[in-house]
Amino acid sequence: MNELRVSVEQLNTVLADSKFLRPYDFTVQSCAAGQCVVLLPFKSELERPGGIVSGMSLMGGADVAMWLAIMTLRGLDEHWVTSDMKTAFLRSAREEGVICTAKVLKLGKKTAYGTVECANGQAQLLTHHVLSFTRVEMSV
Amino acid sequence: MNELRVSVEQLNTVLADSKFLRPYDFTVQSCAAGQCVVLLPFKSELERPGGIVSGMSLMGGADVAMWLAIMTLRGLDEHWVTSDMKTAFLRSAREEGVICTAKVLKLGKKTAYGTVECANGQAQLLTHHVLSFTRVEMSV
Amino acid sequence: MNELRVSVEQLNTVLADSKFLRPYDFTVQSCAAGQCVVLLPFKSELERPGGIVSGMSLMGGADVAMWLAIMTLRGLDEHWVTSDMKTAFLRSAREEGVICTAKVLKLGKKTAYGTVECANGQAQLLTHHVLSFTRVEMSV
Amino acid sequence: MNELRVSVEQLNTVLADSKFLRPYDFTVQSCAAGQCVVLLPFKSELERPGGIVSGMSLMGGADVAMWLAIMTLRGLDEHWVTSDMKTAFLRSAREEGVICTAKVLKLGKKTAYGTVECANGQAQLLTHHVLSFTRVEMSV
Repeated sequence: MNELRVSVEQLNTVLADSKFLRPYDFTVQSCAAGQCVVLLPFKSELERPGGIVSGMSLMGGADVAMWLAIMTLRGLDEHWVTSDMKTAFLRSAREEGVICTAKVLKLGKKTAYGTVECANGQAQLLTHHVLSFTRVEMSV
Repeated sequence: MNELRVSVEQLNTVLADSKFLRPYDFTVQSCAAGQCVVLLPFKSELERPGGIVSGMSLMGGADVAMWLAIMTLRGLDEHWVTSDMKTAFLRSAREEGVICTAKVLKLGKKTAYGTVECANGQAQLLTHHVLSFTRVEMSV
Repeated sequence: MNELRVSVEQLNTVLADSKFLRPYDFTVQSCAAGQCVVLLPFKSELERPGGIVSGMSLMGGADVAMWLAIMTLRGLDEHWVTSDMKTAFLRSAREEGVICTAKVLKLGKKTAYGTVECANGQAQLLTHHVLSFTRVEMSV
Repeated sequence: MNELRVSVEQLNTVLADSKFLRPYDFTVQSCAAGQCVVLLPFKSELERPGGIVSGMSLMGGADVAMWLAIMTLRGLDEHWVTSDMKTAFLRSAREEGVICTAKVLKLGKKTAYGTVECANGQAQLLTHHVLSFTRVEMSV
């Protein structure tokens, strides 16, 4: 569980090729073996009254960050899908970008488990997530 | 925890007034005291390659269904926000509408807890959710 | 997912043969295909000051109820272990027996998912659980 | 959320005074502000066939570790109870002691949220937990 198999550029290409994610403008800031940091910019048109970043945006950012963190260890050719996701909403984000930091805690050939912390620019924890992923054979 | 305080029409007005939800075209199909059924139509532009309904859409539908289910018991004037949400992804939805059925299991003055089942038109369970909400004093 | 493959007597024999569960005096009250009802008697020596039933006892009862509910569909020869368990503590139990009702919501060859409700004799919901199980090849 | 308000000795006295925990022989190894490390010794009489440490023991150790981690910040006089607990079972423990490391991630006046990692002596992660606690006014 220790060799980095992708670059930040490759992960950003994965995002660019995922049309359904484009409205969010996610970008990968950095990665390491089993880790990935994704930036979620503030987009007023996606958000709730008062500039509160929606829970859906935060969950989407966390999900993508873990998906890419698995790729750092398993490469780009496998298909991993979310099987379980739990989110604790701890603090609201208001008109600010969000930094989603994913860490893989356990990786098997078929299942992966990890955590994501979403924080604002002042390093305040907004949401905390635990996710399980499963590898599927189907081509998407 | 037993008196129905809103109508389907009122809940649909809540949805129509929530601009950030408009891309999803959620509609309330029915409600009862502590329960709400929300329809999530298939919208190809929101979804993943192959017509797979995204996890974010399903989580969004579940979250909204529980939010409205709480309103059936507490009325329209209080502000309830999601504090915790866990989703199990059990089966993929493909090019099909989704029915999100929320049930409040415990309701206090400040916290609520319940489940949501998201199923396709063949009554196959796609996702199962447990959610906690908190009542906040802030005006949004 | 519909044929009942065990009897209440067989499930109670499973409990009697599980020495590590004996302190709890769990008994199976009833079962159906994909469902099992387990009774957790009040045992003052296991519990907290004031006669409050401990969270560990409730989680243990819920875990056992789901384990047996899977057996109702898969029989007694397979080995299923808990892979994930989430518990919401909604109300305290005080010097009273607890009824744990498990329902399997999704069953595959390798994974199972379901819910457990633990209630007191007045049908008040004490805890709500969602559990995932995995089938393992190892003999225990 | 930063001042340490208790000592390891005080936390071990809390454990010694909690009769319902005595079968487990938990001990506090270390603590810091918002953190607590609890040791769970292997006790064959509590465990499953083959010397596998039961999920209940691991959940019990995690729950206690978080309870004490909250005390490091809030002192010994408040009453905090578990409101929600999710456990991922990642690897089995066999005839070995377990180290439960709790960290408080968010602490309010009424609610707390944190994680616990349970590992064996080789620093292999066995279980990962997220817990929410609520402060209650009742005297126990």
